[in-house]
Amino acid sequence: MNVDIVKRIRLSPAERRDQLLELGIKMLSLRGLEQISIEDIAKMAGISRGLLFHYFPSKRDFHLAIVQRSSDDILGALTPNEELTPPEMLRDVMERYVTYVTDNRDSYVSLLRGPGSGDPELRVILEDNRKQLVDRILIFGRFADIDITPRIELAVRGWIAFVEEVTISWLTEPKITREELIDMLVGALPVTVPDAAPVVSL
Amino acid sequence: MNVDIVKRIRLSPAERRDQLLELGIKMLSLRGLEQISIEDIAKMAGISRGLLFHYFPSKRDFHLAIVQRSSDDILGALTPNEELTPPEMLRDVMERYVTYVTDNRDSYVSLLRGPGSGDPELRVILEDNRKQLVDRILIFGRFADIDITPRIELAVRGWIAFVEEVTISWLTEPKITREELIDMLVGALPVTVPDAAPVVSL
Repeated sequence: MNVDIVKRIRLSPAERRDQLLELGIKMLSLRGLEQISIEDIAKMAGISRGLLFHYFPSKRDFHLAIVQRSSDDILGALTPNEELTPPEMLRDVMERYVTYVTDNRDSYVSLLRGPGSGDPELRVILEDNRKQLVDRILIFGRFADIDITPRIELAVRGWIAFVEEVTISWLTEPKITREELIDMLVGALPVTVPDAAPVVSL
Repeated sequence: MNVDIVKRIRLSPAERRDQLLELGIKMLSLRGLEQISIEDIAKMAGISRGLLFHYFPSKRDFHLAIVQRSSDDILGALTPNEELTPPEMLRDVMERYVTYVTDNRDSYVSLLRGPGSGDPELRVILEDNRKQLVDRILIFGRFADIDITPRIELAVRGWIAFVEEVTISWLTEPKITREELIDMLVGALPVTVPDAAPVVSL
């Protein structure tokens, strides 16, 4: 019996969708979003091009679903452990962030800095991802009884850009250790430290 | 006598090139780089399409020259005043930066966050611009007798991403004052403060 056919029969629609997105994310580590070919993915999944279009009405829809999935994966990997104190929680989240981006280095760099990274719809998804990260970081702030002012919100947005840039540079050219990197990322956000002044002195 | 003809006669090749680039930068505040039309610019300059191509061999060359000019303009606006102490120098540079981006708001946001901002060649120019900014910031550090480690270099790169993100958010939605913004940008770079520890605690 042909293995491909078994797969085709056994996968539920949700599982098939998952499989296609996971193949898309893998492909994203090899080439830019715009270069991800429907034909290649369908072939790798052992399904017809037509079936792929059943799940994603257009190539564009497929590409954006890949970005959305990748973005959800990051957020999923960064769920705070609420049993920890705020500073521990931040360090724990940043450790998992560095692990995630190290494991998914090429697709992460491609999404954030690749040729397609200026795409307006892609930006909307990444922007939403950052907003959710800002909200999570502000939760640490609330634990630490810090009043969330527009200034703090802005600083946290900036901190996320700092984290992305430093991490991408580090992934490309790791001149410091993983521990030094995490120290730097955590240390750049004093807002989470319980005794921090209400003014962010990032 | 026709004013356009006078203009055409009077501009030297260097002046004409400047004029075309300045028109391009103005246009960049209205639309993305890819949407800047050679025909429109030639019309605004009162020259033929062919003459524009004499200065810039292709539309692509023209677009990249606009990015290069815009990038040079920013660096030009941020020349440090070496008569100041390092902390004063940083504040002075950041004040000029905020003035520059406020005056060139739309083209600045378009370059850094527009649909074309993922373009690889555009990124190379902006990346080079950031490297030059990092070097300048490290000069402040040297004035302050701080040893420039790979860690500090990485932190300064991250700080530039912080500055860009915070400033773009602020330009889009100015929830804090200009003075508060400058305080935040300056405060995020303790490396420049003479008595800072050799470890960047951004």
